[in-house]
Amino acid sequence: MREAAAVRAGQAGTAPPTAGAAGTNGRGDDPLRRRATAQSMAASQRDISVSEFFAKNRHLLGFDNPRKALLTTVKEAVDNALDACEEAGILPEIWVQIRPSGENRFQVAVQDNGPGILKKTIPLIFGKLLYGSKFHRLRMSRGQQGIGISAAGMYGLLTTGKPVKIVSKIGPGKPAHYYEIQINTKRNEPEILNGKGEGDEIPANARARQVMEKLGIEWIEVDHGTRVTIELEARYQRGRASVDEYLQQTALANPHVTLHYVDPEGHEKHYLRVADVLPPEPKEIKPHPYGIELGTLVAMLNESRAGTLHQFLTTSFSRVSAAVARRICEAAKLSPRASVRKIGRREADALYQALQNTRIPPPATDCISPIGEELLLKGLRQLVPGEFYAAATRPPAVYRGN
Amino acid sequence: MREAAAVRAGQAGTAPPTAGAAGTNGRGDDPLRRRATAQSMAASQRDISVSEFFAKNRHLLGFDNPRKALLTTVKEAVDNALDACEEAGILPEIWVQIRPSGENRFQVAVQDNGPGILKKTIPLIFGKLLYGSKFHRLRMSRGQQGIGISAAGMYGLLTTGKPVKIVSKIGPGKPAHYYEIQINTKRNEPEILNGKGEGDEIPANARARQVMEKLGIEWIEVDHGTRVTIELEARYQRGRASVDEYLQQTALANPHVTLHYVDPEGHEKHYLRVADVLPPEPKEIKPHPYGIELGTLVAMLNESRAGTLHQFLTTSFSRVSAAVARRICEAAKLSPRASVRKIGRREADALYQALQNTRIPPPATDCISPIGEELLLKGLRQLVPGEFYAAATRPPAVYRGN
Repeated sequence: MREAAAVRAGQAGTAPPTAGAAGTNGRGDDPLRRRATAQSMAASQRDISVSEFFAKNRHLLGFDNPRKALLTTVKEAVDNALDACEEAGILPEIWVQIRPSGENRFQVAVQDNGPGILKKTIPLIFGKLLYGSKFHRLRMSRGQQGIGISAAGMYGLLTTGKPVKIVSKIGPGKPAHYYEIQINTKRNEPEILNGKGEGDEIPANARARQVMEKLGIEWIEVDHGTRVTIELEARYQRGRASVDEYLQQTALANPHVTLHYVDPEGHEKHYLRVADVLPPEPKEIKPHPYGIELGTLVAMLNESRAGTLHQFLTTSFSRVSAAVARRICEAAKLSPRASVRKIGRREADALYQALQNTRIPPPATDCISPIGEELLLKGLRQLVPGEFYAAATRPPAVYRGN
Repeated sequence: MREAAAVRAGQAGTAPPTAGAAGTNGRGDDPLRRRATAQSMAASQRDISVSEFFAKNRHLLGFDNPRKALLTTVKEAVDNALDACEEAGILPEIWVQIRPSGENRFQVAVQDNGPGILKKTIPLIFGKLLYGSKFHRLRMSRGQQGIGISAAGMYGLLTTGKPVKIVSKIGPGKPAHYYEIQINTKRNEPEILNGKGEGDEIPANARARQVMEKLGIEWIEVDHGTRVTIELEARYQRGRASVDEYLQQTALANPHVTLHYVDPEGHEKHYLRVADVLPPEPKEIKPHPYGIELGTLVAMLNESRAGTLHQFLTTSFSRVSAAVARRICEAAKLSPRASVRKIGRREADALYQALQNTRIPPPATDCISPIGEELLLKGLRQLVPGEFYAAATRPPAVYRGN
């Protein structure tokens, strides 16, 4: 009865009648079987919270297993710390401490000397998935997703029941703020557990130490910075893809960073900076035509304030000069003076093909912020024993995304 | 200056003062550098739509590359069709058609004879991520995420600009509904493009064919069912992990399904069902204690209506008898008569450890719906040439999740 071979050419719509269907409507004949209908199915349809989704699908975010969960947690916290410092023009100093806190449990604490976080945004940054400042801009940074550190906190909560602890201070003479936060996965919202749901304030005076001790807060004295502590089910292991390796590589790739690390066995490592200047600031640039998709082009057309197609092309993209714009319009068989608002789906498609097929110079590279060969070599020499060192830089090309 | 070796034991908090920091607050000294502050950073924090997130991170959902995008799209549509039919007690008949529609573009159409979808829920199912009926229940099904088919539609929109097309009909004598839908990624909401934003209705009378032809709708005549059409950038390829292989395996693993397939070159394959009964319906069961995490236990305690701990244990889990519940309470050093509402974080932790360390029988297996050795062999014999066939079933164990 079952035929795996091609039966004949033509439309599937004219396929031979099905053999073996039980009844003309194909319904099975077990009378006791519960039958869902279009109505009953519609009634059970509902929204799924993004936190619930990722609690179930944590492997998508790097929490596949206890070993990887530890690495991901450290990485998200350190990446955030580095990005915050660099954006604020501060030479980063970062403290990482991992302590065993029970069978298969560790407490990860990461502190920085960054600009600190405003009181009102602390709960959202650490207790809500898909919230952040880096997602929407077209600029290089380490974390982009608005999901990493809050996902780490959620993983900690799910595996140990412990909230995320955050201390942050935005400047000398300003109070520090302390929060114990847990994410409400049903609502994707932060719940503040301490200070009657308001968090605790630590005054910027001689009593600060005393208040911190009373609240059980650990804090390395800095004028401004943030410390986050997450307790999670994890496994500590040295070697490839370990926390130790990641931190060493981070020190190597970021010669302007000072990094202090205390591992779960109490061993300390101090990577001191070899460069006293921050790497050149990455620039936010317009997308290159080769790097966009049709969907992105349509969205750009919808949002553009340009009047004509020519204006749109020269103002929305990198490397599209007036001459290049004219050639693109010609290839798309569209007038450079065509109104952007009147470009329909078919014209957008033609424009997209023309953008891909017109010769356009490669993108500028000041949008990425390389460490530089000299500094890389300097870092390399100090961390890796050897007799000959070389660094190379390759020419740029375009790939989708930013 | 840079030291990779452990300097000395003790607290990171008492680390030596940093060498090379530019100024006491660690700020760099480039006066032209734009400086972000805690205030300016807070101002740029914002919510990220789940659609925007997955548009950028499409690899998380199986849209890594054009070849895989085609497979994922077919798979999501076929899985939905099979689940809908089985839930409604209908022997599934499914039509899959893939047509080339331009350079690197294909149109994928999947139709079923399932129960159909109510008019009002069609746009949400196909044009909103994280919406569905299968996520929250503790029952086996193919798709669970409430994300697959709408993500496929979003990928199609982003790469070809074309909307998803859906036809659905819930019974003989009922009108069919036709929608052209595109997801608004900024809002994660469906936008209906046809019928002035209301969709089109196809009457259940002699004019049906005529109306469909006028609207350019393809539809295989069935009393009830759903057809979804997605156009996307893709690559068609035979062999391992191909659409052809997936459909063959689906036919093999589901002997009760009839599957018609027209590939991009017009070749047809018809897999006719070898079984006229649906597999036994999977049961929704309570979780087994070995399979939950602490976070899940805490959530269950919060939501439970049980008065005492003993009641909670015997009513919330599989395989926890009165005797087992008493042993768990003993191991956790908690009274079986303790009030569920008074169980704090510390007690929950003790309870969790006790659940893991108490001997509890393995879970029942009627929550999974195996095809059965006999039917598997029947399918195997028809699809794979060979002289000896055997099928084996292994005993159950617990793994986290459902």
